[in-house]
Amino acid sequence: MPELRKDPIIRRWVVIAKERAKRPSDFRQKPAPPDEGFCPFCEGNEDKTPPEILAYRKAGTEPDKPGWWVRVIPNKFPALNSEGSIGKCGVGMYDFMNGIGVHEVFVETPRHMRSSSGLDVREQKEVIWAYRDRLLNLKKDKRFLYGLIFKNVGREAGASLTHTHSQLIATPFVPIRISEEIRGSADYYSYRGRCIFCDMIREELGFKERVVAETDEFVAFGPWAARFPFETWIVPKQHLSHFENSPKQVIEDFALILKTVVTKLEIALEEPPYNYLIHSAPFNHDFLSEYHWHLELIPRLTKVAGFEWGSGCYINPVSPEDASAYLREVEC
Amino acid sequence: MPELRKDPIIRRWVVIAKERAKRPSDFRQKPAPPDEGFCPFCEGNEDKTPPEILAYRKAGTEPDKPGWWVRVIPNKFPALNSEGSIGKCGVGMYDFMNGIGVHEVFVETPRHMRSSSGLDVREQKEVIWAYRDRLLNLKKDKRFLYGLIFKNVGREAGASLTHTHSQLIATPFVPIRISEEIRGSADYYSYRGRCIFCDMIREELGFKERVVAETDEFVAFGPWAARFPFETWIVPKQHLSHFENSPKQVIEDFALILKTVVTKLEIALEEPPYNYLIHSAPFNHDFLSEYHWHLELIPRLTKVAGFEWGSGCYINPVSPEDASAYLREVEC
Repeated sequence: MPELRKDPIIRRWVVIAKERAKRPSDFRQKPAPPDEGFCPFCEGNEDKTPPEILAYRKAGTEPDKPGWWVRVIPNKFPALNSEGSIGKCGVGMYDFMNGIGVHEVFVETPRHMRSSSGLDVREQKEVIWAYRDRLLNLKKDKRFLYGLIFKNVGREAGASLTHTHSQLIATPFVPIRISEEIRGSADYYSYRGRCIFCDMIREELGFKERVVAETDEFVAFGPWAARFPFETWIVPKQHLSHFENSPKQVIEDFALILKTVVTKLEIALEEPPYNYLIHSAPFNHDFLSEYHWHLELIPRLTKVAGFEWGSGCYINPVSPEDASAYLREVEC
Repeated sequence: MPELRKDPIIRRWVVIAKERAKRPSDFRQKPAPPDEGFCPFCEGNEDKTPPEILAYRKAGTEPDKPGWWVRVIPNKFPALNSEGSIGKCGVGMYDFMNGIGVHEVFVETPRHMRSSSGLDVREQKEVIWAYRDRLLNLKKDKRFLYGLIFKNVGREAGASLTHTHSQLIATPFVPIRISEEIRGSADYYSYRGRCIFCDMIREELGFKERVVAETDEFVAFGPWAARFPFETWIVPKQHLSHFENSPKQVIEDFALILKTVVTKLEIALEEPPYNYLIHSAPFNHDFLSEYHWHLELIPRLTKVAGFEWGSGCYINPVSPEDASAYLREVEC
């Protein structure tokens, strides 16, 4: 069982995954594993993954057989264990929980393709519906306070398989990045009486120079204080605190803008490594006036070194105005 | 002039270094620059760096000539500009400052060596004295609130030159990682009336299993909620909020434990890439009862991917007890 341990100063929970225990020698060389040709995510190889949790598949086809277009499976090497109780306790002066959680993989297409930009909008919508379905389901399990949807593309961004996929990790705590954002936006709300994200949308649509793309329901823009070159946020225009509670037209329009932004980025930067992640309000609230779900897309083009680790301050060599202008002009 | 921009939600300052402006094509390939054989940090090449700010050198030798043992120079490609006023202002709904700051490099030895573990303790002490001298000097400039000392070793940790060196960036704001630590330790202090770091020292010395090394004045240990395999903190046993105000025996003993920990790490992990950084109380306080300076050493062995960026939660495959046991047993 992995352990969850809380940093007593910053109050950040960390997963200590002792099952994966390693000796120093395991870290001495890191040869890139060869791209072995065999892909467990391709249609026909369903028996090479753990049994599916959810699949959108043709009527009459069997679980863990071909016939699906989106397939959700447990991560074969999960960071957390789904079975067991949380077992919160103190250890000396420190705080501990059992490493309870859920770690799932969304195989976004049965065809072997590297990027979700190869999906058509209809296919991308199905992936988004699968995110929503899994979050709504996991939310019923009262052990969990949060479910983070994220995607790693390219080895530098942490991907170990190339077939386009995304992931979900549900945790029995609210991750510190989320609680920091909620604290910041709650301070703004208490001072101004408005959602800071709603204000940012108005600011960005008025100023225009950081806007990458816009649809009926969304705006994509380079944030004012972008940490990374070409960092792009996608924010729904409506005030919605929870991704999974978004109405149908928002979920479907999200697929359109996500595909647009990913495609622009891949054309401009020639298939860069990147991560995206969805920030949404925790499961234990129904609605928050001060928080607004959004997606953050981070191309992994720069190195994070001692200054960034030590300060939490990032040095970004490309202004979001320049980056957004490039991306805005990419035709796709 | 670079810009300083504040994220309105998290309140994290970010450097937008537009001087270094890059087009998307600059990011498309990242060939490792060849190790060109010529080293501007070696004795005799002083004219290939900006003029020195400080050097400890033999009596009678001239600035920017041989004869030094520690040399502090401006970074040739500084993240921030040292000249000018801060010019705080609002831009729309956002916060802005001019990119004022100082970015210096400590060349730790005139001899070409990759690691500070090659320095003897006397030489390492001189480096530590130089850190202190520069901080005390920069503190007099009331534009600056903080000075971060850090070190990047190895390309994966962000080093662009191999000759052992460390850096200092002084900023007109308190970096968010520091303000988060101070907030957390102030909460603890207000609840318990004790410094959390002093309590951690007692806990770690009592429990012993996470202790890597101990000297008269310091303890080095793997923190309870270590984010990274073999992450090690070095903490003075005395309550000292500011590194630069440490008494002589602490500064000198710090050299000993730093050399010990770096050497153990390099033996155990065969010269891994790593960063270290010193966290200390901001310049605009004389003393803080609730905060305690320390060094964090982070070997860069694991990839930071979407989950970590999105959650702020880290997955560490090696428990600090296991890592510290390995390091403790390394003879050096």
